[in-house]
Amino acid sequence: MVTSTQTIEMAGIAAKDAGITLSAKSEADRNRALRAVADALDQNRQKIIEANEQDIERGKAENLSDPLLKRLRFGDDKIKDVIKGIDDLIKLPDPLGKTLKASELDEGLTLYQVTTAIGVIGVIFESRPDAFVQISTLCLKSGNAVMLKGGKEALLTNRVLFEIIHDAARDAGMPEGWIYNLESRENVNAILALDEYIDLLIPRGSNAFVRYIMEHTKIPVMGHADGICHVYIDEDADLEKALAIAVDAKTQYVSVCNAMETLLIHEKIAPSVLPALSEAFAKAQVKLIGDEKVRTIITAQAATEDDWKTEYLDYVLSVKIVDSLDDAIAHINRYGSGHTDTIVTENTANAARFCSLVDSADVFVNCSTRFADGYRFGFGAEVGISTSKLHARGPVGLDGLVSTKYILIGDGQIVADYADGKKQFTHRPIDKQYPLS
Amino acid sequence: MVTSTQTIEMAGIAAKDAGITLSAKSEADRNRALRAVADALDQNRQKIIEANEQDIERGKAENLSDPLLKRLRFGDDKIKDVIKGIDDLIKLPDPLGKTLKASELDEGLTLYQVTTAIGVIGVIFESRPDAFVQISTLCLKSGNAVMLKGGKEALLTNRVLFEIIHDAARDAGMPEGWIYNLESRENVNAILALDEYIDLLIPRGSNAFVRYIMEHTKIPVMGHADGICHVYIDEDADLEKALAIAVDAKTQYVSVCNAMETLLIHEKIAPSVLPALSEAFAKAQVKLIGDEKVRTIITAQAATEDDWKTEYLDYVLSVKIVDSLDDAIAHINRYGSGHTDTIVTENTANAARFCSLVDSADVFVNCSTRFADGYRFGFGAEVGISTSKLHARGPVGLDGLVSTKYILIGDGQIVADYADGKKQFTHRPIDKQYPLS
Repeated sequence: MVTSTQTIEMAGIAAKDAGITLSAKSEADRNRALRAVADALDQNRQKIIEANEQDIERGKAENLSDPLLKRLRFGDDKIKDVIKGIDDLIKLPDPLGKTLKASELDEGLTLYQVTTAIGVIGVIFESRPDAFVQISTLCLKSGNAVMLKGGKEALLTNRVLFEIIHDAARDAGMPEGWIYNLESRENVNAILALDEYIDLLIPRGSNAFVRYIMEHTKIPVMGHADGICHVYIDEDADLEKALAIAVDAKTQYVSVCNAMETLLIHEKIAPSVLPALSEAFAKAQVKLIGDEKVRTIITAQAATEDDWKTEYLDYVLSVKIVDSLDDAIAHINRYGSGHTDTIVTENTANAARFCSLVDSADVFVNCSTRFADGYRFGFGAEVGISTSKLHARGPVGLDGLVSTKYILIGDGQIVADYADGKKQFTHRPIDKQYPLS
Repeated sequence: MVTSTQTIEMAGIAAKDAGITLSAKSEADRNRALRAVADALDQNRQKIIEANEQDIERGKAENLSDPLLKRLRFGDDKIKDVIKGIDDLIKLPDPLGKTLKASELDEGLTLYQVTTAIGVIGVIFESRPDAFVQISTLCLKSGNAVMLKGGKEALLTNRVLFEIIHDAARDAGMPEGWIYNLESRENVNAILALDEYIDLLIPRGSNAFVRYIMEHTKIPVMGHADGICHVYIDEDADLEKALAIAVDAKTQYVSVCNAMETLLIHEKIAPSVLPALSEAFAKAQVKLIGDEKVRTIITAQAATEDDWKTEYLDYVLSVKIVDSLDDAIAHINRYGSGHTDTIVTENTANAARFCSLVDSADVFVNCSTRFADGYRFGFGAEVGISTSKLHARGPVGLDGLVSTKYILIGDGQIVADYADGKKQFTHRPIDKQYPLS
């Protein structure tokens, strides 16, 4: 496989060209290619499983942890799942060519804002081979070229998946070069320099890794580094809901970005809710770290300033007592990562104030932070969760993989006529679809 | 006025806080503040004009060019214009709190995607004092804090405008710190480092300046460096329209980003259109630079590879003969800056192919590139034109100054119930506005 920086730059140039061609393919053509990819995966199960078993053998020899080996395994069930995922993707409405706005600037001069593909997307992701299939088919559906760099543990599996997807799409009439598989870690640095050809980078992995990417490229990055999520139990909370939500947000899956890391409790309700919470967390083996006020009510390790900034991703929870709703909001906006924060309250005005003032991608009322996820939000497959306030914010599905262009259709109009006052703009919104697609 | 880096960082922190408070103000409150700003500008005309006259005197002493002095002048007429602009802005619909999508994830668990302010916007702009008023009032309307750095030529005018806008907004109940005026060039470098507090930078000015900003900050930048715009005269063009559009696109205002820099002509139509074009451009004092084929038909200076990449911003035009529509599209995608490109053709299929394959923010059919502008598009005031494919692309008005958040309202729902199969998602789109705003 390819390794030199120069070759990767050529792949970037080819991807840019292929992306333009791919984005102009009709919805039917792109869906036909997705069907061909799904069929090819089905027909090549044995080849995929053999490659994956070699990866797993190598992983075992290199003493990979059991959870990592589990994520790496790509057997019959997983293949069935990704094929089912492609079936669902084919059924989703076309994200391209949608008219978002139309207006008449003057008689016979009509402006349309139409969705388009972004161009070339670079995705750097963890060891799960299912991600290779999900990301590449999301890009195919949305008319984007994609350069993928998967985890090195899945080297052989990803190589086979790449060949199957590439060949099936090519045979179905898609342009060569729309998909490119990067195999070595050095290639990551090579693609970070391709800001002339790659329009968007999506890094998935550890905080440190995502931060490294953000700091070493001029390409816009979509995603998130930290997920420091809060649950705030308001003075007007229902105690039963508060308990269930806090336990779910912390323990349902501790090592993910939408798990709760800090619990905030209004001082008026703390004495009645903390003992039950303490008991529930003890049962779930969660270690509690509390501020001084918390430690006057329950047993907990003393919190330091650093605890409010820490994403434990573990059975550990920092707990703080706040003296008001606004104190809770200020803590979240100061220490949070703008990912997902929940208020538990029966007071509608407090819920409204929390939703309005908490500056996060996802702001929830009376439900677990763990709902922050593309699948649970009903977006089908997701490429990640963005904490940036530009482009896409929150869980990102197909809608985050498109851009727009303005198309203006006239009949010979020139600006001089309007500057001279010979003609006037009408600027009238109209209900019309872009007619040339 | 403030100059130290530390003070500017404190202003960034204050702006972040103020932005959150400002974004939670009601539409009526923000419009009332805009009204107060307009009234204060009206009442302080004399003070503004005096400060501006001092700037102009200094500019004359420093031998500023006449066009620059003209842009700097901010007299009664200009003040009237910006007040009229605020009147129009007040009438525009609120960009905040709009429900973009709503869906039921399950009974009693409802997801809303709602527009919000972005946060803190940094704007670095040229010498026109009107820009100070337009940008700050656009930010006030859209609930964003703003840090402005205007041209040094307009130092005293901008200082007075800042004081008037700041005081009027504060007296109308807006938070202190939502607007900040940076006065020295060193302050530009100080704000480039504030990626923790500033969410978006909008630089307006020369290519070199915009590029410098893009290369020296981690803050997302919205705007464009080059405007290398093309007109392509197709083999099926109407000659009269082609002539009028080419002349308008080149000469109606040569020093702006949406003026044509390169004219592409299909070889079949070149012999019939080039002589008339040559005559029209000679009359308009436009110097022509042509490729070899062009120079067999008309007199023109020989083009080099560099000419296709040059934004002249002057009475100079590069002209190239292409052998097909696809050749024109390939040239534009290779040498263009993704700003604005026009096809002149009576052939609908060719127009559709051009619109589909030209990868630019604005793609036009049978009209001048000079229409690419927020005012002409009917967006009212604009903050700039973006050639990025993320967030906003093309002329950017109020819509480009907002982000979104997901708000999920439940009644105690936890993820464990769905993971266990006790409950199922319904994922049903609903037609409902976010109810808590």
